[in-house]
Amino acid sequence: MARAAFYERNAQIRVGEVEALPPGPGEVQVKIAYAGICGTDLHIYHGKMDWRVAESQIMGHEISGVVSAVGEGVTGIEVGQPATVMPLDPCGECPACRAGHSHICQRLKFMGIDTQGGFQSYWTVPAHTVLPLPATLSMKRAALIEPLAVACHDVRLAGTKAGEFVVVLGGGPIGALVGLVAQQEGATVVVSEINPRRVAIARSLGLDAVDPREVDLPALVEERTGDAGADVVFEVTGSAAGAAMMTKLPRTRGRMVIVGIHGDPPPVDLFRVFWRELQLRGARVYEREDFQRAIEVAAAGALPLDQLISRTYPLEQLETGLKQLTEGGDVMKVLIALS
Amino acid sequence: MARAAFYERNAQIRVGEVEALPPGPGEVQVKIAYAGICGTDLHIYHGKMDWRVAESQIMGHEISGVVSAVGEGVTGIEVGQPATVMPLDPCGECPACRAGHSHICQRLKFMGIDTQGGFQSYWTVPAHTVLPLPATLSMKRAALIEPLAVACHDVRLAGTKAGEFVVVLGGGPIGALVGLVAQQEGATVVVSEINPRRVAIARSLGLDAVDPREVDLPALVEERTGDAGADVVFEVTGSAAGAAMMTKLPRTRGRMVIVGIHGDPPPVDLFRVFWRELQLRGARVYEREDFQRAIEVAAAGALPLDQLISRTYPLEQLETGLKQLTEGGDVMKVLIALS
Repeated sequence: MARAAFYERNAQIRVGEVEALPPGPGEVQVKIAYAGICGTDLHIYHGKMDWRVAESQIMGHEISGVVSAVGEGVTGIEVGQPATVMPLDPCGECPACRAGHSHICQRLKFMGIDTQGGFQSYWTVPAHTVLPLPATLSMKRAALIEPLAVACHDVRLAGTKAGEFVVVLGGGPIGALVGLVAQQEGATVVVSEINPRRVAIARSLGLDAVDPREVDLPALVEERTGDAGADVVFEVTGSAAGAAMMTKLPRTRGRMVIVGIHGDPPPVDLFRVFWRELQLRGARVYEREDFQRAIEVAAAGALPLDQLISRTYPLEQLETGLKQLTEGGDVMKVLIALS
Repeated sequence: MARAAFYERNAQIRVGEVEALPPGPGEVQVKIAYAGICGTDLHIYHGKMDWRVAESQIMGHEISGVVSAVGEGVTGIEVGQPATVMPLDPCGECPACRAGHSHICQRLKFMGIDTQGGFQSYWTVPAHTVLPLPATLSMKRAALIEPLAVACHDVRLAGTKAGEFVVVLGGGPIGALVGLVAQQEGATVVVSEINPRRVAIARSLGLDAVDPREVDLPALVEERTGDAGADVVFEVTGSAAGAAMMTKLPRTRGRMVIVGIHGDPPPVDLFRVFWRELQLRGARVYEREDFQRAIEVAAAGALPLDQLISRTYPLEQLETGLKQLTEGGDVMKVLIALS
C-alpha cells in the first residue's frame, strides 16, 4: 500500500496510508525515490501558510523517482524512466503566462503547496512537469535538482559571467548552490554567512565563506576588486541585515538579485541604488531551461552535491528532519527516502 | 563687469562682481544667456550640502549661452557658437570611469556643486563639457536641455518602448519631462502627483495626471493593462510613499527606475520584487548620448518646454526664485537671465 505524510496543522505530521492515484489523461504517476525538505515545507509545518494549504496537505516538491504509470494521451514518457518533477502548474492564460513568464503565472499552482506533493510513495502529476533523467544520475543526487534549478535560474538572471566577482549573502542550501553554480560559470565567489557551522560547510564545499560580523565585508570586496565593487550580489538571507548589506557591495551598475523571502519590506538604500546606478531584480523558482541545466550540472558530477545532503530519513521520520532543520545547526539538506 | 550670485551659507545669496575668468588650455568661456534653478541648488541654498560646497559658492548648472573665448589647444569650438554645458567632470581613472561609466565617476566633480557654476555672466569650463546648439533653438528653451537630458537618460535606461504602459511617480519638472519623453517614445503615460497645481500643470502639458490620494492607482493600472501591470514605473518623488507605491504597479518582470533622491532608506517590498521578478535600477544624471538626444528633442520643438518655464528673473532676483521654489505651489522651472 502507498504511504504518505500529512501535515495536520500546528506542527503535526501524520504518516499513513494513501491511495496511489492512477494517472488520468495527460498525467503521469511517479514512484518517488527521494524527496528533499525545502524551507517552504518548514514554513508550512510551522503553520505560516495555513491560509494557503489544504487540510491533510501532503508537502514535498524536490523529488527523484521512476515513472510508474502513464495516463491517456501522454507521449514521450515511458514506465521505468528515471525522472524528476518541475513542480509548477501555470494557468496558461493570465498576463504573466501570455508574456512568457508562466513560471511566475499570476494563478500558479505550486505543486506540493497548492496541490498534493511528493512526500508519498507515488505522486501523480501533469505530464508537462515530468523531466527525464539520465540513468547515470543517482536518485539521491537527483533529489537536489529542484533547488539546483533555483540556483541556475538565479545565476542566469544575474547574467553572471566568467571572471566576475560575486557575493552570495546567505550560506544555506540555496546560497551554497548559487555560489557553486556561479563558481562553475567562472566567477570568483565569496559567501557571507553568520552561522559558523554553515560557514564551515560552505568551505568544505570549496567556497570562500566569511562571517560578516568578523570581517568588514564591504572593505573586503573593495580590496579584492581594486575599489570597484562586486559585479553581482545575491541576497539569499531574506533578512533586513542582508538587504542593508547588499547595496554596499556592488560596483557602478552592479547587479543585485533578490532570492530570499522578505516577509516585511526592509529598508533599502535607494540613494545608493541611484548614486551607483545599481540594478536589482527578483528571481523566483525557475524556467524549463534552468531545470534542464540543473539536470546537466547534476549529471556532470563536478559539483559536490552529495556533501549538501546532511541526513536521509524514512518517511516516518519526516518530522525529525523538520525539527532538525528548525533548530538549524549544521544541517543543510535532509532527504526523505520513499522507496 | 561680470556679475555672479554667491551662496553665503544659511539661505543667503549675495550678488556681486566677479572676474570673468579667461579660459586656460583646454578650456572654453561661455557667456551665459539663461541658467535654470535645479532642486539641487535649492538643497544647497538651504544648507543641506554645506559639507560639499565651497565658501561663496556660485551655483547653477542648467545653462544656455554663447561661446565667448576659447583656450589654447581647443579645436572644433568657435567664439560666437551657441552652446550648452554638460556639467560633469570625471576623473577618467577610477573603476567607474574605466568601466565606461564616467558620468557616475567615483570622484566626479559636478560643476556648479563641486566647482563654481553658471549663475554668473561668464562661465569658464572644460572644453569637453561644451556642446554646440543649433542656431534655431531659443536660448530659453536651451536652458532646459540639462533636465531634459536627465529625462532622456531615465527613459533610455528603462528601455521604454512604444506601446508600453508607463507610470511616473512625481510630477515636478523632472517627472513631467520623463513623462513627456516617454510619451514621445510612444508609451502610454500616467503621472501620479499629490500637488493639485502640479497635476493641473501636467495636464496642461498634455500628460494624463492623477492624484494617488483620490484615485486607487494600482487598481487604475491593473484596469488599464488588463490585469497585467505597468511595464515601467519611474520613482521621481524621493519619498517613502513613492517607494511603497512603485512595487505595487509593475507587471511580471516590469521595470522600476529610481530617479528621486531618497535621503533615508525607505522600506521596499522585496517580496513583491521576488514574487513578480521585478527589475529596479538607479538612473543618475546622463551620458553624452542623452545630452545629444535632449538637444535634438528640444530643437525639434514637439515638446511643450516653454510651458515648463514658470518665471524668468534677473540675477539679482535669484533668491526670489529660490524662495518661490521652496514654497512649491504652481512653480515648475525658474530661469535666471544673465545677458
